[in-house]
Amino acid sequence: MSLKQSLYEQLVPEARASGISRLNLFIVGVVLASFLFLALETEPTLTGDPRWVQAFAVFNTGVLAIFTLEYAARLWVAGLDPQYRGFGGRLNYMTRFYSVADLLAFAPELVVMALGGGGSLLVLRVLRLARLVKIARFVPAFDALGAALRRSGSQLLTSLAVALSLVYVSAVLLYFVEGVGGEHQEQFASIPRAIWWAVATLTTVGYGDVYPVTPLGRFFSAIIAIAGIGVVALPAGVFASAFSDELRERRERGQGQ
Amino acid sequence: MSLKQSLYEQLVPEARASGISRLNLFIVGVVLASFLFLALETEPTLTGDPRWVQAFAVFNTGVLAIFTLEYAARLWVAGLDPQYRGFGGRLNYMTRFYSVADLLAFAPELVVMALGGGGSLLVLRVLRLARLVKIARFVPAFDALGAALRRSGSQLLTSLAVALSLVYVSAVLLYFVEGVGGEHQEQFASIPRAIWWAVATLTTVGYGDVYPVTPLGRFFSAIIAIAGIGVVALPAGVFASAFSDELRERRERGQGQ
Amino acid sequence: MSLKQSLYEQLVPEARASGISRLNLFIVGVVLASFLFLALETEPTLTGDPRWVQAFAVFNTGVLAIFTLEYAARLWVAGLDPQYRGFGGRLNYMTRFYSVADLLAFAPELVVMALGGGGSLLVLRVLRLARLVKIARFVPAFDALGAALRRSGSQLLTSLAVALSLVYVSAVLLYFVEGVGGEHQEQFASIPRAIWWAVATLTTVGYGDVYPVTPLGRFFSAIIAIAGIGVVALPAGVFASAFSDELRERRERGQGQ
Amino acid sequence: MSLKQSLYEQLVPEARASGISRLNLFIVGVVLASFLFLALETEPTLTGDPRWVQAFAVFNTGVLAIFTLEYAARLWVAGLDPQYRGFGGRLNYMTRFYSVADLLAFAPELVVMALGGGGSLLVLRVLRLARLVKIARFVPAFDALGAALRRSGSQLLTSLAVALSLVYVSAVLLYFVEGVGGEHQEQFASIPRAIWWAVATLTTVGYGDVYPVTPLGRFFSAIIAIAGIGVVALPAGVFASAFSDELRERRERGQGQ
Repeated sequence: MSLKQSLYEQLVPEARASGISRLNLFIVGVVLASFLFLALETEPTLTGDPRWVQAFAVFNTGVLAIFTLEYAARLWVAGLDPQYRGFGGRLNYMTRFYSVADLLAFAPELVVMALGGGGSLLVLRVLRLARLVKIARFVPAFDALGAALRRSGSQLLTSLAVALSLVYVSAVLLYFVEGVGGEHQEQFASIPRAIWWAVATLTTVGYGDVYPVTPLGRFFSAIIAIAGIGVVALPAGVFASAFSDELRERRERGQGQ
Repeated sequence: MSLKQSLYEQLVPEARASGISRLNLFIVGVVLASFLFLALETEPTLTGDPRWVQAFAVFNTGVLAIFTLEYAARLWVAGLDPQYRGFGGRLNYMTRFYSVADLLAFAPELVVMALGGGGSLLVLRVLRLARLVKIARFVPAFDALGAALRRSGSQLLTSLAVALSLVYVSAVLLYFVEGVGGEHQEQFASIPRAIWWAVATLTTVGYGDVYPVTPLGRFFSAIIAIAGIGVVALPAGVFASAFSDELRERRERGQGQ
Repeated sequence: MSLKQSLYEQLVPEARASGISRLNLFIVGVVLASFLFLALETEPTLTGDPRWVQAFAVFNTGVLAIFTLEYAARLWVAGLDPQYRGFGGRLNYMTRFYSVADLLAFAPELVVMALGGGGSLLVLRVLRLARLVKIARFVPAFDALGAALRRSGSQLLTSLAVALSLVYVSAVLLYFVEGVGGEHQEQFASIPRAIWWAVATLTTVGYGDVYPVTPLGRFFSAIIAIAGIGVVALPAGVFASAFSDELRERRERGQGQ
Repeated sequence: MSLKQSLYEQLVPEARASGISRLNLFIVGVVLASFLFLALETEPTLTGDPRWVQAFAVFNTGVLAIFTLEYAARLWVAGLDPQYRGFGGRLNYMTRFYSVADLLAFAPELVVMALGGGGSLLVLRVLRLARLVKIARFVPAFDALGAALRRSGSQLLTSLAVALSLVYVSAVLLYFVEGVGGEHQEQFASIPRAIWWAVATLTTVGYGDVYPVTPLGRFFSAIIAIAGIGVVALPAGVFASAFSDELRERRERGQGQ
């Protein structure tokens, strides 16, 4: 088997019946490590330490090198697939969603580094999130999420509309009770501020930065909380049920073949 | 096709087999924008700025004009439906739930504006919530919510009764442990105050404005929290399940035809 | 129809095929009102006002009179049921769970009031919670809750054991990370205190009175929260599903007859 | 029946068709009590009181004695099972997972106590968590949890990957909006800190130690909360559904036999 053929089998997921090749597993590992480093790089207690700064620089250079090599290798072996053969085929390949994400994952930083910018620009770091796509390709049934979204379409829309209406109406109510009347609380002094309270309450996050203090506000708030937790959880329930149905059908279809 | 006929097809949802016409989509957009502006209009940091105040005035006048025209157009084209033909038919039309909501959505503010009140009265703004009905008409399966409520009737009642009993009994317990005994906490000094704690805890909102501080209070509170989150989530679960059953039956009935 | 016969049909739920009689509906209303007053009676801002104090006294006396009359009437008409006829039958009737609860709902307070104690003792007020039983009798499918509890038996036990083990192990972990090591936080200084944190976190109540502050504590806490919300919600899910199964079977059994 | 035979039937769960023997119930009780004492022993308000310290010492010694006796008895009667007969069989028995946990539950503390260390070392106390295994053996359907984990395998992986991606991307977004821009909040000053916020929000724990304060941060936070609660609850839902399926199949298999 030629190097090109063996690289093809290591790099292209579709070349395998199931599972993930060692090379792709390594790449997934590099992506996960790069997310860890992206997070650490922003921590002030670490960026003040020259040793960490150096470690970040070395790691980032290494990651960029790996992704550049990976991209070149993918481009090279893509020719083994008839639809991506030749120059036009390669252009087709490069404009695929996955290939664009692969390019965004290293090219902009590489260009800035070449121009002497040091890769320290914040915006460039955000582009690293494109590396998520590299992982998504290997998560089983990841595409079932999109199918579940389409499948639950109108029910999801309905339940979201109901949830958002409840948030809005609750906010208007509490704005009047706590902001306009009551103790004139700063935190309820406008509808947008009351919406912040309504979202925190109805999703049951309840940070505790905003809460009603008057008896009437607490009375309405209690009713809204008891009646509302179900309503705001409806979209999530609809989606979860569609996702689970989608996966069951896939399994049954797979067994039926 | 006459203007009246084409307006009828644009305005009346029942005139279309499915989907939403461009004119109705525009109206839904105006309603959504009017809710955004209703919220922004109450924000003190914006109402202090004359440019925003002017923007609000211009926008509100425009919205009122659009809804007035819409109401007139709906009233005009309603005659194409045999049951709303003639003067008596129009009266029937105007007393429908949807038509009353349409009228409430602009008429009171228009009257006050004509009398020189400027439309700035708070109560008038609340009437704008009637515009929600304009959107509800186009949310698919919105009416399934009402059917789900009726369908889950006695189960919903039972689970709500259990949930509210648990809230009350928990509040009485913690009132004795934390308010009467213990550290005599202000926040547990009466049963109504303890109910506020019980609602915040059992819905898992947990603002953090009230919580037990004595070991005994924390012991009971922990048991209540672990046993109770399921019980208070029961009504929501019953309703969600009835909603999902209702939608499945509708889909099956639709396919059966 | 004699007064005794007509009272029997108004008072005894089993005498009706379905629904609730007007007299029983009135009694349920009185019970609900008495719970509202029980709560208000403990509120310091009201007990300082002589008018409220008088209102409480009048209301309580009225409620006691109603429940005394109700008890006497129930005892009288019980004789229409063969199994409660005569003196021995009445004794049987009085030792039923429902009858004991009915007695506890008024007799102790009546005795203390007769002795001049004014009915103001706190312990006596708690006995009013026995009035909940008066309502429970009329909540449809209330007894399905007990059946659901038995039905989910061993699964509920398993999921509770898993949930409690997770709470305990999480508490021990955070006790070491935050209490013994780390910043020596007061709130994590012992395992019982850490259990309070674990319960608040895993039930997602999250009051915010206790939370990890060290990076390591937050790291473990995040893992525990993501993995744990499902585990601690398991008992609730098991119970809700058993409750819903029980109700479906009852409906099907009812239709099958 | 010989003592050995009767001890075998009391100690070995497999010797009974169902239920739990009195001796094993006693051991479970001792384990539960030892967890209670392990917790109390760390409470500073108790460890300052010499009477409590003595009670802890007496209790721990008693528990160690009981578990030592239990271990010896189990080792002795194991010979009644052909596969653990003789010296080699006993070695096999001692290297089973359950036997190792039984040994860890008392031996290290016994050794330290013999050496005069008093059993007060913290690390030794953690080893007491091995006693959980003693209970797990008697929780019905406990092993169904492992089966549910395997059964939900790839779906659980997918939903966890989606949940963690959402946590990471939300954290990066809020880091830019609140930490880099906005009010330069300390709590959002790095991605790891923002991850702490994202976990607390998306699991709906919401301690309230970190929350966005700028309008833009609150806007994104509200969208993330409403869309995200469903996504982060997906893994839990997938696992709960697999657990319930596993239990139903076991029941049906049991009835089918």
